Amino acid sequence: MTHFEDFKVGDVTELGSYTFSAEEIVRFASAYDPQPFHLSDEGARASHFGRLCASGWHTAAIWMKLMVAFQKRHAARLIAEGLPLGRLGPSPGFDDMRWLKPVYAGDTISYSARVTGLAESRSRPEWGLMTMINEGVNQDGDVVFSFVGHVFVERRPA
Amino acid sequence: MTHFEDFKVGDVTELGSYTFSAEEIVRFASAYDPQPFHLSDEGARASHFGRLCASGWHTAAIWMKLMVAFQKRHAARLIAEGLPLGRLGPSPGFDDMRWLKPVYAGDTISYSARVTGLAESRSRPEWGLMTMINEGVNQDGDVVFSFVGHVFVERRPA
Repeated sequence: MTHFEDFKVGDVTELGSYTFSAEEIVRFASAYDPQPFHLSDEGARASHFGRLCASGWHTAAIWMKLMVAFQKRHAARLIAEGLPLGRLGPSPGFDDMRWLKPVYAGDTISYSARVTGLAESRSRPEWGLMTMINEGVNQDGDVVFSFVGHVFVERRPA
Repeated sequence: MTHFEDFKVGDVTELGSYTFSAEEIVRFASAYDPQPFHLSDEGARASHFGRLCASGWHTAAIWMKLMVAFQKRHAARLIAEGLPLGRLGPSPGFDDMRWLKPVYAGDTISYSARVTGLAESRSRPEWGLMTMINEGVNQDGDVVFSFVGHVFVERRPA
């Protein structure tokens, strides 16, 4: 998949898995989301979460980390094979961001992206707009995180 | 404002301002979003951003940081005044997340939340659902970040 024309609705990209350690959960939350249930098991016991769990923004940031790593691997592979590499443009934004279940310390979350829409851009003929549902699923198969993303993908030169 | 009944559509809460240092931009991006334009001015010069700018997830995480700090100040004030403190429930999620302009190193972003909707919950009579537009505005008055948030707020006991 190098250009907009190479994608089709239903394509799924596995971005990889990530285990959230207690240490990293606390470090992220201390900097950006210092609520008691993100800082210690003791603080979480008094909440409806029950035990230490990650900030929702941490769960989202790890999606980004794995997406960037995937893009780098993908680009390196295309370059190694001598294939052209379509550019990714800016994202117009994200919708329907949902944190459906807690991500607890020790949980392993597997992230994937599924293409749900492909639209040519009239105003920007070099680009197509791809819509994807991004999900994070824990080791029990529960969806813990999802959002709808949009990104411009370069079209194959005519 | 202690309970759902105390809010009205149009209420604006100023959450505070935050200056994004180059050092913190690079630290966040190194951990979670290591794209060249988030890691150095040199890397950014080759991109459409032109110079070092923050990961969109960093901009979002700082919103959370300021929101948590605001809630803590607010709760402390109500307790000091002997007023009852309504609980905030879980958020069903966020919509329409937009990164409208880059946040460059040295930019100061002021965050605010404006109430746009208040709905009683039929299924959960103790709670009301509040909808807010959250925005980040830079020192030039440009909106750089916005999203629609939803949160359950406890209703005043009958």
